[in-house]
Amino acid sequence: MEQRITLITLGVTDLALSKAFYEALGWRGQEVQETVFFQAGGLGLVLWSREKLARDCGLAPGTPGGFGGIVLAHNVRSDTEVDELLAAADLAGGTVTKPAVFNEIGFYSGVFTDPDGHAWEVAHNPGLPLAEDGTVTLPDFGAA
Amino acid sequence: MEQRITLITLGVTDLALSKAFYEALGWRGQEVQETVFFQAGGLGLVLWSREKLARDCGLAPGTPGGFGGIVLAHNVRSDTEVDELLAAADLAGGTVTKPAVFNEIGFYSGVFTDPDGHAWEVAHNPGLPLAEDGTVTLPDFGAA
Repeated sequence: MEQRITLITLGVTDLALSKAFYEALGWRGQEVQETVFFQAGGLGLVLWSREKLARDCGLAPGTPGGFGGIVLAHNVRSDTEVDELLAAADLAGGTVTKPAVFNEIGFYSGVFTDPDGHAWEVAHNPGLPLAEDGTVTLPDFGAA
Repeated sequence: MEQRITLITLGVTDLALSKAFYEALGWRGQEVQETVFFQAGGLGLVLWSREKLARDCGLAPGTPGGFGGIVLAHNVRSDTEVDELLAAADLAGGTVTKPAVFNEIGFYSGVFTDPDGHAWEVAHNPGLPLAEDGTVTLPDFGAA
């Protein structure tokens, strides 16, 4: 298995609402067959019916809205950008579940959830610098 | 907000078990401060305590194991590779929740879950070709 991810699909309960939320944050995608595809760097971020997604995976859909066990991080280039994005997410109908603070490691971050409760950490971490194209290369932590 | 993702963090209940699972599939990462970091293309895939992850996001951890509402897809270059990866996931202690089939769209895919129930679709989709470096560029679906 190569170390890469092709698509991240977020299960949603109201496609139009979710699409509008991400569009309000500046994302632009394509809607086709009740699915929204956003290009996200070298992979795709997809919005699709949570129930169909679960069934397509052979899983019970369960209850939406709670913590799903996965967090996406979107790192930015300044503390100000962290504040701006959290404010924009709030304005767009998201929920800021953790206002930005300097965490134990020393960098500035906060968290918002989208209309379905999917969590996004927004962080400015100088220890994990972004390349010009927005990709990251993990530092050598000097660990095993 | 730029259309990109910096990190995907999977909340896990047993870090050593989860790390061993991904290592059995060929992933190599770094463990530092009870966190495992894998380089995954231009982003990082991270394993961290599910409970700490939830609390760090200002969220209640909830119950692990059920469908979390997010599915990661790992596309490969042949139908045979789909079968091989699903078999490897099963052997490594994952659960094949959907044996590979040709889906309605016409491509071959199946799904496994990792030890914490995080779902991975494994697909060979000629309509979404992989670049040599494993990235994808979404086609023009001719949609809005």
